[in-house]
Amino acid sequence: MKVVHTIQDLRTLLGEYRKQGNKIAFVPTMGFLHEGHMSLVDHAKAVSPIVVMSIFVNPTQFGPGEDFERYPRNLERDRQLAEERGVSVLFVPEVTEMYPDKPKTNISVSHITSRLCGASRPGHFDGVATVVSKLFHIVQPDFACFGQKDAQQVAVIEQMVQDLNFPVEIIPCPIIREEDGLALSSRNVYLNEEERKQAVVLSQALEQIDPKFLAENTPGEVIKKVTELIDSRPLANIDYVELLSYPSLEPIEQFEGVSAVIVALAVKFGNTRLIDNKIIKI
Amino acid sequence: MKVVHTIQDLRTLLGEYRKQGNKIAFVPTMGFLHEGHMSLVDHAKAVSPIVVMSIFVNPTQFGPGEDFERYPRNLERDRQLAEERGVSVLFVPEVTEMYPDKPKTNISVSHITSRLCGASRPGHFDGVATVVSKLFHIVQPDFACFGQKDAQQVAVIEQMVQDLNFPVEIIPCPIIREEDGLALSSRNVYLNEEERKQAVVLSQALEQIDPKFLAENTPGEVIKKVTELIDSRPLANIDYVELLSYPSLEPIEQFEGVSAVIVALAVKFGNTRLIDNKIIKI
Repeated sequence: MKVVHTIQDLRTLLGEYRKQGNKIAFVPTMGFLHEGHMSLVDHAKAVSPIVVMSIFVNPTQFGPGEDFERYPRNLERDRQLAEERGVSVLFVPEVTEMYPDKPKTNISVSHITSRLCGASRPGHFDGVATVVSKLFHIVQPDFACFGQKDAQQVAVIEQMVQDLNFPVEIIPCPIIREEDGLALSSRNVYLNEEERKQAVVLSQALEQIDPKFLAENTPGEVIKKVTELIDSRPLANIDYVELLSYPSLEPIEQFEGVSAVIVALAVKFGNTRLIDNKIIKI
Repeated sequence: MKVVHTIQDLRTLLGEYRKQGNKIAFVPTMGFLHEGHMSLVDHAKAVSPIVVMSIFVNPTQFGPGEDFERYPRNLERDRQLAEERGVSVLFVPEVTEMYPDKPKTNISVSHITSRLCGASRPGHFDGVATVVSKLFHIVQPDFACFGQKDAQQVAVIEQMVQDLNFPVEIIPCPIIREEDGLALSSRNVYLNEEERKQAVVLSQALEQIDPKFLAENTPGEVIKKVTELIDSRPLANIDYVELLSYPSLEPIEQFEGVSAVIVALAVKFGNTRLIDNKIIKI
């Protein structure tokens, strides 16, 4: 595995691979890798022999007071995990390499960012769309793998790729969970023992939701039941519980005429904000 | 010369050229070609054997009440001119090909769009940045040629390319003028005989400005003299006369410490809005 720190070096290296006729699959991450990220590498390897992973904690997608500074980092461990899993090129730029000057260009995706994390974290998805666009221009991948745990992020990226005609195929990859159901996240490391125990309520709340459950409940009743279950855990502090059409992410009043929905949760335990979701085809 | 109407056909064709090791130079236009456009083709041919020209009157960069509907079009004449000048591929998409659905993604460049045409035409440069980004993703050029007559457009595109790490080199190309000095523009065809005669005042007003003139006048005096000369033509209706630092496009109070300035004009003759500019290194 090659570790590259500058855009110029990465372009030179990938230009060589491309000249040899190789396609490139890309796994953008913020590091502190877990099995969720590693499963993205597996999906990438399945479509292309050259897998580029980036590790970049992007400051522009964190709001004031969010956890940019304390976001967990462990490059040596990440490097080892990436190499073991078969990453070809690890791209680890400094913030000054990605943002040498104060940027004046912003990419904004409307409508699908107006709810969920887009509402809770103003500016977050502008930061995501803009940095992903930068990374796509730097790596020029044929494929890019994103985890469905950040379902709204996947929807935003897919919308951007479609609207701006990016020559890349987005591969959404399923959520990876702990044995007890908790969705893997780099932020899980923030949880203390009791919070970690109660956090399993997110996946429990989602587990009960299937086409049969949706047939027996209105959207309002689904939200109410999920909310009540999460609220029964004393350390859980709900940011949002939403049920939206998928992938358009619009509120719905009834299930008729809707082909898929997403139930999406954001819940704080102490200072740690966790998200989870389930997409159900009706 | 090949004429291509769909994104898919263009990608397939250019993919072949690229596989053979060719670089691609791109000349985006709104058609109704004149010698200004043709000179861009010459610059493109100088850097690459494969020259792609697009002709697309982009609706999203026209404001309400602007001339999108009546913008001059003549594809048969354009096709002939492009072929004669050595364009390899002419890309002529329909509006529905470029915007099959209502787009949700917008690219916005701040600061350098706050004055000049950015102030006179709100939303214009968002439309320009977004469609140029789409065209760059469709054509994937190594070089792209833009005319300096739209100096603010060049500055916006260069800023976007830098901020978003587009893998393309922008080649700004000098303004081409009629014998009497009028800058070539597809919109010149709107002018009646008397307007056409008086329109030469734009280039006359700029011609007097050189380092010596700037040494003898403050920025305020330069603007005043240019404004007075243009105002002396009865059909001229000034939209703006501005003197800004270049390429940052910021207002300046004095010339000290500034390495280059732009004097930029927008003047209406009847319903026809003309622009012109001069960049002076100090």
